Amino acid sequence: MAAGFVLYDYWRSSACYRVRIGLNLKGVCYAQKPVHLVRNGGEQHGAEHHALNPMDAVPVLVHGAEVIRQSLAILQYLDEAGEAGGAKLLPTQPLARARVRSLALLVTCDVHPLNNLRVMQYLEREFDATPPAREAWMRHWMAEGFRAFEALLASDPATGLCCHGDEPTLADACLIPQVYNANRFGLDLTPFPTIRRVNEHCLSLPAFEAARPENQPDAA
Amino acid sequence: MAAGFVLYDYWRSSACYRVRIGLNLKGVCYAQKPVHLVRNGGEQHGAEHHALNPMDAVPVLVHGAEVIRQSLAILQYLDEAGEAGGAKLLPTQPLARARVRSLALLVTCDVHPLNNLRVMQYLEREFDATPPAREAWMRHWMAEGFRAFEALLASDPATGLCCHGDEPTLADACLIPQVYNANRFGLDLTPFPTIRRVNEHCLSLPAFEAARPENQPDAA
Repeated sequence: MAAGFVLYDYWRSSACYRVRIGLNLKGVCYAQKPVHLVRNGGEQHGAEHHALNPMDAVPVLVHGAEVIRQSLAILQYLDEAGEAGGAKLLPTQPLARARVRSLALLVTCDVHPLNNLRVMQYLEREFDATPPAREAWMRHWMAEGFRAFEALLASDPATGLCCHGDEPTLADACLIPQVYNANRFGLDLTPFPTIRRVNEHCLSLPAFEAARPENQPDAA
Repeated sequence: MAAGFVLYDYWRSSACYRVRIGLNLKGVCYAQKPVHLVRNGGEQHGAEHHALNPMDAVPVLVHGAEVIRQSLAILQYLDEAGEAGGAKLLPTQPLARARVRSLALLVTCDVHPLNNLRVMQYLEREFDATPPAREAWMRHWMAEGFRAFEALLASDPATGLCCHGDEPTLADACLIPQVYNANRFGLDLTPFPTIRRVNEHCLSLPAFEAARPENQPDAA
């Protein structure tokens, strides 16, 4: 590709993990700039990163002179920019696109925002929430989201090896990092057999394997 | 349009408000089915609505035999389905689309999910959060999101009468309902002059006026 891609990244951020999956599926070469979300009070709050993203968050994708924020905007940009080849992250038909987006949004709007580091910090600071109470909070929202996600997968013949058909889409790029979080915080996945099956399949693919948190250069 | 549109709606839900704006901008005629989020323990949890959306949430758009969930998926479906005419909710250029989506996602991922009814209920139930503490929580996340949103608008020459250029997009359809919420919960908007200016302009347009919560048939 003509202009270089730089991903401002943190190995354990599930929003970054989504983008790494997408970049790999598109076959895009990119450089990683780690932003440590915990060290030094959080490098995302530093002046340098704040200038790049006033939301003080990762991921940020820099493409030449352009700055793109928000994981779902980045992923759809990769799909639409044309420069990037590789697999399409969204299908062609409008209804299929709507299904894939609605699954992705279930994770990115209904689950993940409630499990963010900044939310955990607020619960501790303002409500004296203990570590077990904070982890119960996380599992509560993940379980609620996964129940709906499982129902939407299990009830629809469009579900294949992946969330939509047999090739990975935006929906898988969002689901698999959320399953990683769920495992990290001890959510019992027994009630979600379709999610587990799709997760296992996706993790067997090189694009997902390379994107795993533990395979990043900044992994602890 | 060939098949009818039915919106499962609640007047004060800002996610529904987004979709009403989009439907109006696209010039789509639609029927409204009110789902009362508070009465009877929340009609969104009833068997009928759960069958339509296992996430127990509004909005849901039914288009003929098809069910579309998640406000941003619905809005982009309207833009892509072709059947709907009216204004485009997303610009043409990939980078412009990314900017509009990233602004929309700042509201839908970074602000609104933390201000949901179900989150308020959890804070009260599990952390004994008082009404003032819950409202402080809401204002905290709105202020944090608006600071970033304001910076992204004010620093970019692509901002016009609306968030991106002079015609409303997906970004305005998300911002204006969030400003409604901010006013409802007493957030001081003085530090956000560009947001206030865009809000005022958009509310002067018929598509936004017709979508306002107080103009819905189920408004209290």
